[in-house]
Amino acid sequence: MSIVAVGSVAFDSIATPSGRVENVLGGSATFFALAASYFTDVRVVAVVGDDFTAANENVLKKRGVDTRGIERAQGKTFRWGGQYTDNLNEAKTDFTELNVFEKFQPRIPAAYMDSKFLFLGNIHPNLQAAVRLEMDGVRMTGGDTMNYWIQRTRQELIETLKLVNVLLINDKETRTLAGDNSLPRAARKVLALGPQALVVKQGEYGATIFFREGAFGIGSHPFTAPALPIEEVKDPTGAGDSFAGGFMGYIASQEELNREVLKRALFYGGVMGSFAVEQFGTERLQSLTRAEIDARFQVFRELTHLE
Amino acid sequence: MSIVAVGSVAFDSIATPSGRVENVLGGSATFFALAASYFTDVRVVAVVGDDFTAANENVLKKRGVDTRGIERAQGKTFRWGGQYTDNLNEAKTDFTELNVFEKFQPRIPAAYMDSKFLFLGNIHPNLQAAVRLEMDGVRMTGGDTMNYWIQRTRQELIETLKLVNVLLINDKETRTLAGDNSLPRAARKVLALGPQALVVKQGEYGATIFFREGAFGIGSHPFTAPALPIEEVKDPTGAGDSFAGGFMGYIASQEELNREVLKRALFYGGVMGSFAVEQFGTERLQSLTRAEIDARFQVFRELTHLE
Repeated sequence: MSIVAVGSVAFDSIATPSGRVENVLGGSATFFALAASYFTDVRVVAVVGDDFTAANENVLKKRGVDTRGIERAQGKTFRWGGQYTDNLNEAKTDFTELNVFEKFQPRIPAAYMDSKFLFLGNIHPNLQAAVRLEMDGVRMTGGDTMNYWIQRTRQELIETLKLVNVLLINDKETRTLAGDNSLPRAARKVLALGPQALVVKQGEYGATIFFREGAFGIGSHPFTAPALPIEEVKDPTGAGDSFAGGFMGYIASQEELNREVLKRALFYGGVMGSFAVEQFGTERLQSLTRAEIDARFQVFRELTHLE
Repeated sequence: MSIVAVGSVAFDSIATPSGRVENVLGGSATFFALAASYFTDVRVVAVVGDDFTAANENVLKKRGVDTRGIERAQGKTFRWGGQYTDNLNEAKTDFTELNVFEKFQPRIPAAYMDSKFLFLGNIHPNLQAAVRLEMDGVRMTGGDTMNYWIQRTRQELIETLKLVNVLLINDKETRTLAGDNSLPRAARKVLALGPQALVVKQGEYGATIFFREGAFGIGSHPFTAPALPIEEVKDPTGAGDSFAGGFMGYIASQEELNREVLKRALFYGGVMGSFAVEQFGTERLQSLTRAEIDARFQVFRELTHLE
């Protein structure tokens, strides 16, 4: 079933130990949509400027992504510049030009309203909440956020979390949101705010999903997916959004939503994140096949599977 | 089959967010021996001072550990003091008093010479090499080291690594030893120095084992064991040595040494490390049962097992 993804479309300028690129297509909605497109139909809600070309849009269209919800505003598209040095887990931001993204007011096309899955990318929690309330027929909502919102719009974020079924954030964000350094304790505190499940993305160490007791009719034991040891991480940008795309995309492609589906979804998230970092920007996510994805899924499975 | 463990016996003074203890029994050989004792017979080679009491020795004896190789020297036992703040992955050392450990010359009792497994705890690489050469009938040698030796006795360490089958170090040590920030690339460089397998301990993120191509008659795909999310890590001291004890102890208890045994050993390592951190010092490792250990092994398995 189709997913609506709300978030940013951006042009990124990135330097890593493997090289540098300028003004390549990026943004949370872009990475998410490309990753999820290998599993299900994806519909994007975002805003771009005059500088967003037909070639840019075709990157999404070629993957069958519905771009009718990409609004064109006067001005420039959101631009971000950053670099990664030896620690590929953390970016140092060189510049952030919000441009048309600053006044982004997500508008859901009527044709999107029958989607049963919704992904709220990392935007102001009030905008996330407004979209979720408008799409009141969805079966499952995934959400992302970042330390910026956790620290500056805490109350608004807490309201939004009541509307989110699965929150996907990293371990640092989990600890900041809960105000607790113990990850399992922090996870429990976050789950008490609303979500039935919390996916903690741990970069090169994989990801762990924590469940609220009784959520999805299952127990509260956590589950962990490993990360693939990758020889050369060329560009970590978008790994988290690609993870979310693989995770939500796989879930939306399944009939049922049970613990086994969520476990496999966590592995597929890792698979898509691992592809994303192999090339700069969205390059690797543009040209995959489902066979490559499933072969890597098996590698992930073997990586941690006891007979 | 029995394991000989060479390393330190110490009295530790530790402060963590959960509390503090003074002069509790510790040291690499102690944690290793206690953890391994649940799987196989363990024989310790170490040195202690006049202050090492019969009660201290009984902690090991009660677990059936052979203490005939613990030499008593004039002076005080090795003492270490350290604290962990919010980041429980890293200790800040308050003091190190080597005392009798400074002149430690491992002497292997004749009665130990028929052991087929050897663990070389974190001591000067020349001492490690001498022990290994003396015990020339062993089937498998595991070894540990630390950044101190990697930086100050690099050449000696490289000679020792030629005699070690499985090296167990953490991710930071792996990167320093190889001079490479990419973990899989660093692992390959370390394996080129001699060991057939490298176990990279990743603290709260679990552990990954890398194999030299064709080692143990198996392929070179790595394997990852997760870590159990633990609500309250009371004291991380000794977690790495307890991991090594579970890992080597399980291997020594098995008839064959194949990929499946090594994979399960990695899980048992994680299990013993997870118990160690639940109480201060060696407390938790003194009173376990094999049933508790196997129950937690199942929890680890479920944590990452896809149907």
